[in-house]
Amino acid sequence: MPSHPTLLRALRGETLPRPPIWLMRQAGRYLPEYRATRAEAGSFLDLCYSPALATEVTLQPIRRYGFDAAILFADILLVPHGLGRKLWFAEGEGPRLEPLTTAADVAALADDAAMHAHLAPVYETVRRLRAALPEETALIGFAGAPWTVATYMIAGRGKDEQAGAKALMREAPDVFAALMGRLIDATTAYLEAQIDAGAQVVKLFDSWAGALVDDAAAFEAWIQEPAREIRSRLARTRPGVPIIAFPRGAGARYEAFAKAVMAEGVAIDSETPAAWARDHLQPHVAVQGNLDPALLVRGGEELDAAAEAVLDALGAGPFIFNLGHGITPDADPDNVARLVQVVRGEAGR
Amino acid sequence: MPSHPTLLRALRGETLPRPPIWLMRQAGRYLPEYRATRAEAGSFLDLCYSPALATEVTLQPIRRYGFDAAILFADILLVPHGLGRKLWFAEGEGPRLEPLTTAADVAALADDAAMHAHLAPVYETVRRLRAALPEETALIGFAGAPWTVATYMIAGRGKDEQAGAKALMREAPDVFAALMGRLIDATTAYLEAQIDAGAQVVKLFDSWAGALVDDAAAFEAWIQEPAREIRSRLARTRPGVPIIAFPRGAGARYEAFAKAVMAEGVAIDSETPAAWARDHLQPHVAVQGNLDPALLVRGGEELDAAAEAVLDALGAGPFIFNLGHGITPDADPDNVARLVQVVRGEAGR
Repeated sequence: MPSHPTLLRALRGETLPRPPIWLMRQAGRYLPEYRATRAEAGSFLDLCYSPALATEVTLQPIRRYGFDAAILFADILLVPHGLGRKLWFAEGEGPRLEPLTTAADVAALADDAAMHAHLAPVYETVRRLRAALPEETALIGFAGAPWTVATYMIAGRGKDEQAGAKALMREAPDVFAALMGRLIDATTAYLEAQIDAGAQVVKLFDSWAGALVDDAAAFEAWIQEPAREIRSRLARTRPGVPIIAFPRGAGARYEAFAKAVMAEGVAIDSETPAAWARDHLQPHVAVQGNLDPALLVRGGEELDAAAEAVLDALGAGPFIFNLGHGITPDADPDNVARLVQVVRGEAGR
Repeated sequence: MPSHPTLLRALRGETLPRPPIWLMRQAGRYLPEYRATRAEAGSFLDLCYSPALATEVTLQPIRRYGFDAAILFADILLVPHGLGRKLWFAEGEGPRLEPLTTAADVAALADDAAMHAHLAPVYETVRRLRAALPEETALIGFAGAPWTVATYMIAGRGKDEQAGAKALMREAPDVFAALMGRLIDATTAYLEAQIDAGAQVVKLFDSWAGALVDDAAAFEAWIQEPAREIRSRLARTRPGVPIIAFPRGAGARYEAFAKAVMAEGVAIDSETPAAWARDHLQPHVAVQGNLDPALLVRGGEELDAAAEAVLDALGAGPFIFNLGHGITPDADPDNVARLVQVVRGEAGR
């Protein structure tokens, strides 16, 4: 008899003999089969919007490693795209959007119905995945958190460009707040639609939360409260579906975040000490993390020891094994196989 | 030079030499001038929807007693009325609504634009009040909290009828949650419009919060979270406008409520010991309350002593003097005058 997915059990607060494992960006360029499908798709956006191909790449790491969870293959910038902003991926340079800076830009954003129409292929991917996955493999939907998505929308790009969002917050607080309000609504609607299509868990990625960590009021207003509001609304409209929140770079604010947001799981980055997370977060939530992805490049004894250290620190409470950041393209697929063995206690010595 | 309203100073955490004072239902039947205007209006709803008469009754207690705050004269059931539910007041029996019990009923509720059109006279009353009030008198807008409004909408009446809402919550949780979601949205929009019209503070009345106090999960989901969500959304869309939350009957849950909701003020009922509120609530928020309204019927030494006891317990922190429940029709207007003197330290002995 197929068992209830271990990921869901951990998110309900259960301590498992061996934690479930999945990896951020597990469907990614480190896998040759991913690169083949990616080439077939044409552009990255074509891959995201093709239910057949997005389903295929989502399933590839499940087939190869038997991870305990699959995460929908998509991109956090599909929401701004669905809201009507121009989006393109410059090869080797990452995403580009037309910068959003005015009240008129915010007012012109699409409504939920238009967004859902645009994102229908994503929901179809979720439906196909739910049908294809083994019963014991949890299906995770996801979205970018409003702050992180806003930083891209405002600056028109990602890396080191949170300065644009901070400047808008300071100089046009009404425009910034209106954008955040629209993103909170749209993100909630997007996650609801993923849940309706079959996602059993949703994850909220706030990859640039660390950019507000030095400003207590801003962190509370724009990282913590939006996550809490989305969680609270989903708890009302889609009760019983757990949420994993990932406020990357939250540092010591992780604890207040975990208590305030009331997500079922909190994902920690590699900079957060696992023992600290055990003491300060695990009493409140299931913890997910946090092996340094560099170890999947290097491998060897160092990988084994680091994985065991994470297991030792967090394995005695509700825990989901993962990385602290996304797996990198130069990771060795054999090291990933080894990691899964170590975490499952199946590694020969 | 007219000073900044003391009510706003208290809500910013300031401890004042003498606290601001106003009374729940200060524009009410205990005042002969109210009864005269009420008779002139015709029905109670006519009074609520007449900007001229609603402004007049709101100002009456300010003229008579110089309270530090005026509260918009309206009724918590105007929101369901604005959402399209039939509402009438049966003389001597309180409000009546057509009971709401099905998903179709919820789906048929009006949208925000239609609600605003219906409630335009209320916003006009707020505008007139703002123009008429002295600068040192704060203008408070208000709404019923979603749970309390839902109990009336579901049962079709108020007193001792929370059983209907509890039954719907149990037997048709989707319908109940959909209603609550619509009420959270509508209440937020209603308060935003009051703020835009000139309200400087808004108060959220959850008069029947006590009906969920024995169920921790229900209290959190339907009392605490809706208040927090409304507060959080207003903090984003109308920053700087403080909120007073009144989860009447919350008992020991007042403390978790105060910490979670992050309202600037929490109003306590007469059943909550003032000294407990000083120790458990005042470190987090401005406290408002909580003289027993029965003392305004009885008066005398007992009134003086009880008012002094409240002042002694709560006066050393951010505090707003008020009653623990609305003033009753049999209160003696002279006792109210005496209370104002005592609170202001102007009472001869």
